[in-house]
Amino acid sequence: MTSDNTAADPSAQGPLVGILGGMGPAATVDFYSKLIAATPAATDQQHLRVMIWADPTVPDRSQAIVGHGEDPTPKLVEGAQQLKAAGAAFYVAACNGSHAFLPRVREQVDLEYVSMIEVTAEHLSALPYVKAAGLLATDATLTAGLYQDSLAEYGVKPIVPEAADQHTVMEAIYAVKAGDLGPELRVSLVRVAQSLVEKGADVIVAACTEIPLAMTTEESPRPLVDPAVLLANRVVTKANSL
Amino acid sequence: MTSDNTAADPSAQGPLVGILGGMGPAATVDFYSKLIAATPAATDQQHLRVMIWADPTVPDRSQAIVGHGEDPTPKLVEGAQQLKAAGAAFYVAACNGSHAFLPRVREQVDLEYVSMIEVTAEHLSALPYVKAAGLLATDATLTAGLYQDSLAEYGVKPIVPEAADQHTVMEAIYAVKAGDLGPELRVSLVRVAQSLVEKGADVIVAACTEIPLAMTTEESPRPLVDPAVLLANRVVTKANSL
Repeated sequence: MTSDNTAADPSAQGPLVGILGGMGPAATVDFYSKLIAATPAATDQQHLRVMIWADPTVPDRSQAIVGHGEDPTPKLVEGAQQLKAAGAAFYVAACNGSHAFLPRVREQVDLEYVSMIEVTAEHLSALPYVKAAGLLATDATLTAGLYQDSLAEYGVKPIVPEAADQHTVMEAIYAVKAGDLGPELRVSLVRVAQSLVEKGADVIVAACTEIPLAMTTEESPRPLVDPAVLLANRVVTKANSL
Repeated sequence: MTSDNTAADPSAQGPLVGILGGMGPAATVDFYSKLIAATPAATDQQHLRVMIWADPTVPDRSQAIVGHGEDPTPKLVEGAQQLKAAGAAFYVAACNGSHAFLPRVREQVDLEYVSMIEVTAEHLSALPYVKAAGLLATDATLTAGLYQDSLAEYGVKPIVPEAADQHTVMEAIYAVKAGDLGPELRVSLVRVAQSLVEKGADVIVAACTEIPLAMTTEESPRPLVDPAVLLANRVVTKANSL
């Protein structure tokens, strides 16, 4: 926001940022918190105008990617349409798995989105010490190759957990969603991150929005990169440039 | 949600709950967190469908109530219209001060809202030990008499801070909004709450959405009643009854 952009001038209210959320609800809260924290503002009126479409009934993205579930695309299209109808300038999705479906949503809804995954890959490629990135993500996000493809495009080597470790990651994610992550599972997740470091990871990417709720930056054996924070920063920059 | 109401049946997706937020953004995050916590759910799909219209550019409710500022009603009407257009079954506002304007919004937008203030007064009137309630609120919420009127209607005596103490309350609220509440101000706020108890308050009502972010239930000298939590519970009950 520029200093001209105050509440005194109602026309200078800035663009509406759309958030496709509810996947899950806790991750949506987390992303909106990060967006608020990323916004330089001292009063309410200096914050971004945001519309959050939080539909937790969007069919499970993970199940759909591995081929067992209902296609979430129609519900995501509905959400993007609602955001567009309300006047959003662009939107973001606070759910990694949903990114597998966003290109198809884009074909049906004429509203630009900013990819959390691409923002992350771009960010990592700019860090001089990062040659390889360890991925803590859902089975589905890994199966869809979302981060692997984007990282490879930006010249960063993706490193994924062994099968047994990946099982632990999934357990932790579903425990966060259910609101009952215990201390043992927290430690197990740190152990998985450590195994990624042993395989060469220079950073750990919290490539599922529930991961930062399960492992803190202080617990991670290497810098924990939170794509939601990177996306929040990008949203602020982009909104203020419009 | 009943057990029939699963993602397997896309028509059984439940009502859309509207949230008029952004006043301030942190209080909106706080309310949505409380709504999620109030919802009995083990998976994403069992959570409520929510649309949040978070427009922080709504003119300052406090300034408008005390007669110095732009009328926030048009912006609130815009938000309520957006919520209605998207199909909300009803809406709530996660800002006490805004309740001074909601009756006027209701005249212009045919969409029911649930008053956080009335829910609170009703709740307190049902507690056998509560004869009087101390109010920690903005100048404006007190000037508008929002809680005083509603509590009186339900037979609970409202108790407000002395002028100097009220100044401390306002300082704390604006510090939370600016993200820089220090420890001294936290202690000062506890002192204000204690003076309300000395004047007979059986409970302390966190009658501004920023107050629970400034004083915890553990710090409060009497039970700290959080209207946002009461509203969240009511939203869940109401949504599940529709």
